[in-house]
Amino acid sequence: MGELQRDLEALAAFTGGGAGVTRLAWSPELRSAYDWLLGRCRRLGLDADIDAAGNLLARWDAGDGPAVLMGSHIDTVPEGGRFDGALGVVGGLHAVRLLRQWGVEPRRPVWLAAFMDEENTRFNTALFGSRSFCGEDLCGLGDRRDANGVTLAEAMAAWGRDPERHGEARRVDEVGHYLELHVEQGPRLEAAGTDIGVVTSIVGLVGYRARVTGRANHAGTTPMRLRRDALAGAARMVLAIRDLARGREEATANVGVLRVAPGSSNVVPGLCELSIDLRAPSAAGVRELDEGCRAALGAVADEEGLGLELAETYRLPAAPMAGELVELIEGAAAIEGASAARMPSGAGHDAMVFAGRVPAGMLFVPSRGGVSHSPDEYSSPAQCEMGARVLARAVAALVS
Amino acid sequence: MGELQRDLEALAAFTGGGAGVTRLAWSPELRSAYDWLLGRCRRLGLDADIDAAGNLLARWDAGDGPAVLMGSHIDTVPEGGRFDGALGVVGGLHAVRLLRQWGVEPRRPVWLAAFMDEENTRFNTALFGSRSFCGEDLCGLGDRRDANGVTLAEAMAAWGRDPERHGEARRVDEVGHYLELHVEQGPRLEAAGTDIGVVTSIVGLVGYRARVTGRANHAGTTPMRLRRDALAGAARMVLAIRDLARGREEATANVGVLRVAPGSSNVVPGLCELSIDLRAPSAAGVRELDEGCRAALGAVADEEGLGLELAETYRLPAAPMAGELVELIEGAAAIEGASAARMPSGAGHDAMVFAGRVPAGMLFVPSRGGVSHSPDEYSSPAQCEMGARVLARAVAALVS
Repeated sequence: MGELQRDLEALAAFTGGGAGVTRLAWSPELRSAYDWLLGRCRRLGLDADIDAAGNLLARWDAGDGPAVLMGSHIDTVPEGGRFDGALGVVGGLHAVRLLRQWGVEPRRPVWLAAFMDEENTRFNTALFGSRSFCGEDLCGLGDRRDANGVTLAEAMAAWGRDPERHGEARRVDEVGHYLELHVEQGPRLEAAGTDIGVVTSIVGLVGYRARVTGRANHAGTTPMRLRRDALAGAARMVLAIRDLARGREEATANVGVLRVAPGSSNVVPGLCELSIDLRAPSAAGVRELDEGCRAALGAVADEEGLGLELAETYRLPAAPMAGELVELIEGAAAIEGASAARMPSGAGHDAMVFAGRVPAGMLFVPSRGGVSHSPDEYSSPAQCEMGARVLARAVAALVS
Repeated sequence: MGELQRDLEALAAFTGGGAGVTRLAWSPELRSAYDWLLGRCRRLGLDADIDAAGNLLARWDAGDGPAVLMGSHIDTVPEGGRFDGALGVVGGLHAVRLLRQWGVEPRRPVWLAAFMDEENTRFNTALFGSRSFCGEDLCGLGDRRDANGVTLAEAMAAWGRDPERHGEARRVDEVGHYLELHVEQGPRLEAAGTDIGVVTSIVGLVGYRARVTGRANHAGTTPMRLRRDALAGAARMVLAIRDLARGREEATANVGVLRVAPGSSNVVPGLCELSIDLRAPSAAGVRELDEGCRAALGAVADEEGLGLELAETYRLPAAPMAGELVELIEGAAAIEGASAARMPSGAGHDAMVFAGRVPAGMLFVPSRGGVSHSPDEYSSPAQCEMGARVLARAVAALVS
């Protein structure tokens, strides 16, 4: 087993229990993992510490000029996998190892970060670490509580940190390029037999909660033509939303929540609530989906005689990766003899925080069955190794 | 206010609390209502008692031969209305009053029954009273519990009754015709401006629980063409089921329950469970709907690459009313100058237990807005009065 695999395995041992890996933001398990990782970084000669926002930052302060920052995260969802985030961090560490093996003498600093709370599963403070690093003001989040009633301020205090001082973690101004290696978390690379996904954009997304109101009625005594069936209307909406995304390159749409009231087999549904999640790699694509969705839902509601209220629940702009880094990663893959394909990332990542601030690039390795956020998450040792090698080649090109 | 209205109002006062009327099977409220009703029956000269199955049976034992039985129920759903069931019982009492006013001297007995537990809301022992009266063996139900853990046997003991002796209530053999007056509980009579609905059949119904299995996946990273979305498939099924019923005279179909798992806005649904309720006035109609539904659902599952399991949850045969009584009720309506229209009953009633055993007939009066099982249930005094008068004319024709 190579060093990368040993590190992945060692890191997976830090878990709060249950199936797979559970390392929530600011948890004792995460802290133990950080302590292990600090040791691994220092053994490679890196200057490593935990910053004011709970990011582990390891620095190879060679040369001068703005740093090349490799980053990802090692917090996980509950009962998650051992690759999501972790591969980008220990893969970055492996890249440093490779750079040394290859005799690269960087003319710029090479940094590696594990960012705090990418997963957003504990305090609803998504991307806390990378946003702090990039200078976003997150003061005032200290009162947010986890499911056990613990506040973020309390959880940070256990690490000797204070939410009001998270801004001290800002170091984006010292960074020249950001690179992130990650598992795809989707099935495309595996299905196409491609080694490396070169991310062109992290998709923008819009979320809605739709409330469809009809009239609850006795299912036996109300003739079909006199019904205003909220579920039948919602069913048409589900299919209209799917058709919209199917007709657009790289777009996705999902209705993942649907609740019916009153919810009795012999009562015509009077109310449905559904969630709508729309994603596309470009701002124009998101706008098209969004407008198409609103129009289609309004038309169904009119035709069915139903009420419709749409409430926006989230909206994140698309984050295009830097074109120069897309080409750089493709070149790096070619050096390693890896096949590569451009693709959008349908999931969010720390890289989206950096995009627009510094040139940011991302690369994916295949996920078996497209499975992620699950103990079954898997990428093979060869796939992981290839990801780290391509990352190292890209860093080498930037610092040579 | 006429006597019928006074009786409806007096009866509505017996309630366990909450909005509208709550008189569950075997409850103290129902017992108080029975005691009041016994007094009303005896004041009209009827021989009235509560039988072994909790039915109140009042007998005008004139003439000889098999009785003409008027029946319905005075138990209610929680927070129900004051007309569902009650109108058939106090309307029957009013019919006796009218027969006396009209000087009818019956050549056959005229009976009136309030049957126990038509509503099925407490012990899951639907139609306990009418089924006992008709000789069905319901021994062994005594262990069924209500939501508070009280068994049927305990609830019956509070009335001095024993579930094992319910069979003593069997008197169907002494009955020659069954007639039931009821509120429509649907919108058709009101919409058409018709005074009296003459029931041709109580619809047969089939219920299913469908389990649709796809594959849960990340909503952002799984391309549309690689999804097996259980909700999208279920949506097509909801619409296919509606189309089936829309294309068939007098048929209804309803999906009233739909649950989605895992139920997260950013996860493609991997599982849906839905209820299916199919109704038609004839056995052939039910069979057509049933077969059509199974075929349509199977086709959708195949096309979508989804798993489908169908479990039958209930099945009740259609209960046609006696043709002679349909015509008799139409004639009775004509005598009273009431407009009448034939229609199926989409809801179940005590009459369905009698159908097939003795000639059974039913008549409806309009329900405002089609609303029932609600405190808002309403039929006007004139509509109720007309229902009772037509019932009385029908009885008069049978006993003269």
